[in-house]
Amino acid sequence: MVGTPLPSLTPVTPAKVWLVGAGPGAVDLLTLRAARLLQNADVIVHDGLVEPDVLAMARPGARLISVAKQRSRHSVPQAGINAILIAEARAGFNVVRLKGGDPFIFGRGGEEVEALILAGVEAEVVPGISAAIGCAAEARLPLTHRDAASVVSFVAGQCKGLSDQNWVGLAGPDRTLVIYMGLANAADISAKLLDDGIAPDTPVALVAGGTRPNARVVIGNVAQLGDLAQRENIISPAIIIIGAAVAHAFVPAQLIAIAAQAEEVL
Amino acid sequence: MVGTPLPSLTPVTPAKVWLVGAGPGAVDLLTLRAARLLQNADVIVHDGLVEPDVLAMARPGARLISVAKQRSRHSVPQAGINAILIAEARAGFNVVRLKGGDPFIFGRGGEEVEALILAGVEAEVVPGISAAIGCAAEARLPLTHRDAASVVSFVAGQCKGLSDQNWVGLAGPDRTLVIYMGLANAADISAKLLDDGIAPDTPVALVAGGTRPNARVVIGNVAQLGDLAQRENIISPAIIIIGAAVAHAFVPAQLIAIAAQAEEVL
Repeated sequence: MVGTPLPSLTPVTPAKVWLVGAGPGAVDLLTLRAARLLQNADVIVHDGLVEPDVLAMARPGARLISVAKQRSRHSVPQAGINAILIAEARAGFNVVRLKGGDPFIFGRGGEEVEALILAGVEAEVVPGISAAIGCAAEARLPLTHRDAASVVSFVAGQCKGLSDQNWVGLAGPDRTLVIYMGLANAADISAKLLDDGIAPDTPVALVAGGTRPNARVVIGNVAQLGDLAQRENIISPAIIIIGAAVAHAFVPAQLIAIAAQAEEVL
Repeated sequence: MVGTPLPSLTPVTPAKVWLVGAGPGAVDLLTLRAARLLQNADVIVHDGLVEPDVLAMARPGARLISVAKQRSRHSVPQAGINAILIAEARAGFNVVRLKGGDPFIFGRGGEEVEALILAGVEAEVVPGISAAIGCAAEARLPLTHRDAASVVSFVAGQCKGLSDQNWVGLAGPDRTLVIYMGLANAADISAKLLDDGIAPDTPVALVAGGTRPNARVVIGNVAQLGDLAQRENIISPAIIIIGAAVAHAFVPAQLIAIAAQAEEVL
């Protein structure tokens, strides 16, 4: 083969896709590896939860393909996303599949890895700061604590399928439960937890806006959760953190959702 | 005050400490924010789990203070660590407290934030890729999966206190349980899970070495867990992942702990 000139195509051989976690919102919470891959990608296939300033790290000329639409992060059917990834990789492009948070925490990364490998496309996964971890740091709220929680669990709280989910044992003494994507459904989540026997005065934090400049935190308890979600400035995406560890939070003043004056009105 | 010359000290006013997650081992899995803070720090107070090549990112002249000793990551008493952080910050230094993984997932970050704030020292937390998330990506093992797990929980499996921990409900159908620091205790963990009623054939992955070059993965089931931990190349730090999602992993061939030939000998 030596000496045989080859046409100068983008040399990604064999075809490969990087599934990359974009983290919780702030561009500097990308990993160094994610930033490098993003800057080298020919094609970036991204969710709606990925921030514009993260996408702005792409090199000039990179093609950005959004697979999100409006409020749902999975508006393009999964099979359609898989087909895009496979086609772009087989065409020889350097493909990054960019997902908010981490690809393997409610990111359907497992399904994409499987589809790619079954299609003969190599897949590498680059972890990201998951929303729970990013929001907890921002809010100075420990997810585990020697005096309060030796277990932390993550669940998803979308409306669809909530009643089918079994959360028994995930909240309660010595446990922290983090609910992703539960904002629109907060009242039902409160009812579900109370039905499961969780004490109504169990501390709750609602962290909205991830680690973006508009991040806001409101603190209350399980019984109040439906009301907390209605507060001013509490907007999607948001996570709900439940358990005694919440009482060990030192939420920075600038993140508190409602000023004292407004609080009196409520 | 204008016009009054001040001595040229490092101007960190008010005193402040950054608690920074160093991630799961690979230097390029630091966040961009962590890398920047590390490069600007005067003093870096670090655990034993932080890799030498991460510490090598410090600027020339930065002081590195290890608070780890031998096998324990908390060998300097927590009060002693707090005292170091407070003293260095009050002395006007730019202090980074660097922890393996994430500060709020089994990192005792909550205790340090509390001690700092009660001492009048500002504390900011920078999240890191927690070992579970980094190892799962490396092993191409989804922690949640539409067909296998809608819940993922993290616990710590050190010998001390294992029998006091209540893990009921964390493993089982539709759930992924990740156990940190459980390698030395794998046989007892297996027994504990079986006592809790977990099916013996529930899939298990043991991921050793985090995202370091010597990372290795071995797959089996809950009943075999004690034996899996004895395999060649399975060394600390390691995490144990339990649940049906493990069956959806596509572990890269180079990470499989034992070659086929060696496997026959066992």
